Amino acid sequence: MQDFGDNAVATPLRLGVAGLGNVGATLVSILQRDGIELTKKLGRQIVVTAVAARSRSRDRGIDISGLEWFDDPVALAKSENIDLFVELIGGEDGPAYAAVKAALEIGRPVVTANKALLAKHGVSLAKIAEESGAQLGFEAAVAGGIPVIKTLREGLGSASIARVYGIMNGTCNYILTRMGNEDISFAECLRDAQALGYAEADPTFDVEGFDTAHKLSILATLCFGYEIAPDKIQVEGISKITQADIKVAADLGYKIKLLGMALRSEDGIEQRVHPTFVPKTSAIAGVDGVMNAVALETDHVHELLLAGPGAGGPPTASSVLSDILDIARGTRVPPLGVPSQELMPYKQAPARDHDGGFYIRINARDVPGALAAIATRMGERSISIESVIQRPDLRVKDEVIDGPPTRTVVMLTQKTQESAVRESLAQIATDGFIVGEPQLIRIELL
Amino acid sequence: MQDFGDNAVATPLRLGVAGLGNVGATLVSILQRDGIELTKKLGRQIVVTAVAARSRSRDRGIDISGLEWFDDPVALAKSENIDLFVELIGGEDGPAYAAVKAALEIGRPVVTANKALLAKHGVSLAKIAEESGAQLGFEAAVAGGIPVIKTLREGLGSASIARVYGIMNGTCNYILTRMGNEDISFAECLRDAQALGYAEADPTFDVEGFDTAHKLSILATLCFGYEIAPDKIQVEGISKITQADIKVAADLGYKIKLLGMALRSEDGIEQRVHPTFVPKTSAIAGVDGVMNAVALETDHVHELLLAGPGAGGPPTASSVLSDILDIARGTRVPPLGVPSQELMPYKQAPARDHDGGFYIRINARDVPGALAAIATRMGERSISIESVIQRPDLRVKDEVIDGPPTRTVVMLTQKTQESAVRESLAQIATDGFIVGEPQLIRIELL
Repeated sequence: MQDFGDNAVATPLRLGVAGLGNVGATLVSILQRDGIELTKKLGRQIVVTAVAARSRSRDRGIDISGLEWFDDPVALAKSENIDLFVELIGGEDGPAYAAVKAALEIGRPVVTANKALLAKHGVSLAKIAEESGAQLGFEAAVAGGIPVIKTLREGLGSASIARVYGIMNGTCNYILTRMGNEDISFAECLRDAQALGYAEADPTFDVEGFDTAHKLSILATLCFGYEIAPDKIQVEGISKITQADIKVAADLGYKIKLLGMALRSEDGIEQRVHPTFVPKTSAIAGVDGVMNAVALETDHVHELLLAGPGAGGPPTASSVLSDILDIARGTRVPPLGVPSQELMPYKQAPARDHDGGFYIRINARDVPGALAAIATRMGERSISIESVIQRPDLRVKDEVIDGPPTRTVVMLTQKTQESAVRESLAQIATDGFIVGEPQLIRIELL
Repeated sequence: MQDFGDNAVATPLRLGVAGLGNVGATLVSILQRDGIELTKKLGRQIVVTAVAARSRSRDRGIDISGLEWFDDPVALAKSENIDLFVELIGGEDGPAYAAVKAALEIGRPVVTANKALLAKHGVSLAKIAEESGAQLGFEAAVAGGIPVIKTLREGLGSASIARVYGIMNGTCNYILTRMGNEDISFAECLRDAQALGYAEADPTFDVEGFDTAHKLSILATLCFGYEIAPDKIQVEGISKITQADIKVAADLGYKIKLLGMALRSEDGIEQRVHPTFVPKTSAIAGVDGVMNAVALETDHVHELLLAGPGAGGPPTASSVLSDILDIARGTRVPPLGVPSQELMPYKQAPARDHDGGFYIRINARDVPGALAAIATRMGERSISIESVIQRPDLRVKDEVIDGPPTRTVVMLTQKTQESAVRESLAQIATDGFIVGEPQLIRIELL
């Protein structure tokens, strides 16, 4: 392994940066601008000496003429002329994976912002890093500029975490916040977000919750000490959220947020990503726009909330740089908080009653006895209804429902299992009392 | 200096703990309970081997029979049988200072939760630590269980902080929160807080803002790189806040919070502690009860908010433990973020216009022309009045004002200097138009 002890303090730390998109270019420019300041703080110089990217000639607003150029990130990762490899290419496999693996195998420290890579290969990469004595930093992979990885790996003593949840996708939070402030649809909001650069041309990965799921799986491992399990997550995105849902939520004292949430119980772990009714007075409800937030609840009912920018060049590059500085100082932490051989195999907790209950919006057939029939079906599965709202303005704008006339009905349930609600709704659909897909959203008592 | 490199991994880290109050006893019990778990995580055993406290026989709910006992914390700090000294005695001088200094001088790492000590002697202690190669951790000294010191020392890359502010005293926040929820006076709230153990028998240090000032001075140094200057802080507590102030604030869309705030400008640093009108919709307004929060604003207008428990045994002991774990891992960071010889001498920024304006509550003589005369005096000092409220219910309950009849009047100013407002109010008092002390509270646009 490489030595960052006292003997090395006077020698500069040479970085190879693969990927010169927004974050990569910002990192290079920060190091060019703040180099002297950082050297003072650290007692050691940090310099970018080599880069790899797809196009050598693209204008990125930075001068890379003095840097060694690599077409192949793997060759950069293994170069004798760097001390630390920074991976900002992205993607769960391909060159990002190959290059990170190659660097770690030769004991070279790596800093990456790649959540997809970590979610898929985090455990095996941690193992390689521990064997070769290399450090692996990924602060920027979850919640961009918020130091949540450092807090989990180093900041909590032996506090045992019972639940972690958060808003980890700025695109979704921007859309939900705008839908809450203006009377516009999901589709309109998404178009605006794309125009503003807050959403990709293909937004599926963000709006359907997969990005949040990747981040959640990494946090869950750091919180609970189980292997990373991105495939063991119930994932639901925000594309079906309507103005009607947002309005009813507001009337009842809630906001709708896309939350990623993981809980530990004696029976295992539960991981979920879905739109959620959160009380307006909760701290997480105040996190609006492109901001992110992560809440950590320990066994002492001691809750920490970390909120800040979840994306963007400067915040994300700041997090990448904080990992680089830790490595330059010689900080050593197992990548996943505990040594990878101590990680437990993932254990899925069995489904259980959900304390907060559910929000249900249905289009009920406008025939006598429909509501009574629906309530009876719910009762058969021991679902208690907390409240029912039927108002003309709950109708989803532009929604075309073929067939007989319907009325939009909203119900809030008490504590119950999601499967019971789903089975009951399926039964009611079979009975012919509802038309179209019901909307089902969890309520969390945060 | 002591070696915590690879060679030392197998040897246990022996702690000497001075001070066995709530935090000290909790720390000892956590280490006794979670020792095996921590050893797995760290690859190294952490054991308390010696303690010092005032009374050997007091029942603290922990077993100290197997530990070496010291009556003198300085002797414990210098003992050959410990590797790390934990100072939980408290107090800015006396045995706490003597013991911490003695440990650092022989190159022994120290972890402390003592904000008063740090505020007064932080720079000289950091110098001693750097010279002897010892680490000095003090995560628990500011905002108890919130990892704000770690975030500032290690988590922000090279991001440059422009402003830091926060709620750093749980006693004050508890009192202000209760006054906001119930129609009770400061004095009543304080009595309840004392009964619940949230306030000391002599509450001056907390409620008059001095505790917040100590913490702020430490944060300001970590944020801005100037020497710690706890005496260069304008400090005002919450003891003069009345129900009338709380009510008007709520009516106008604000909450009143005791904030510590430090700002960096080209002309120097401004540090203030005072009750503050904060918009109800701001994130900091949602931090209620005994919770604390610290907000960091960087030059990229990238704001981080860290919220959590500011005090209490388990959260504070967790922070102490996270410092211990960092030292056990071999993490090395200059105590004050930059090497102490790089700290700049404190430079006070000159007074300037306050963007948010001020809230003013006065008892105006109930005579014709009084309001006009008051407004004229304000105008003479270029103070623009944003709004005026005169309502019978603004009268402070039980307030006895001798002399002629008065009416309570509230004014909000536009952007102006505090000195202009104070001079103007003094002039109006001389004119004989107001009775009693005016109330003056800053409004912050957070």
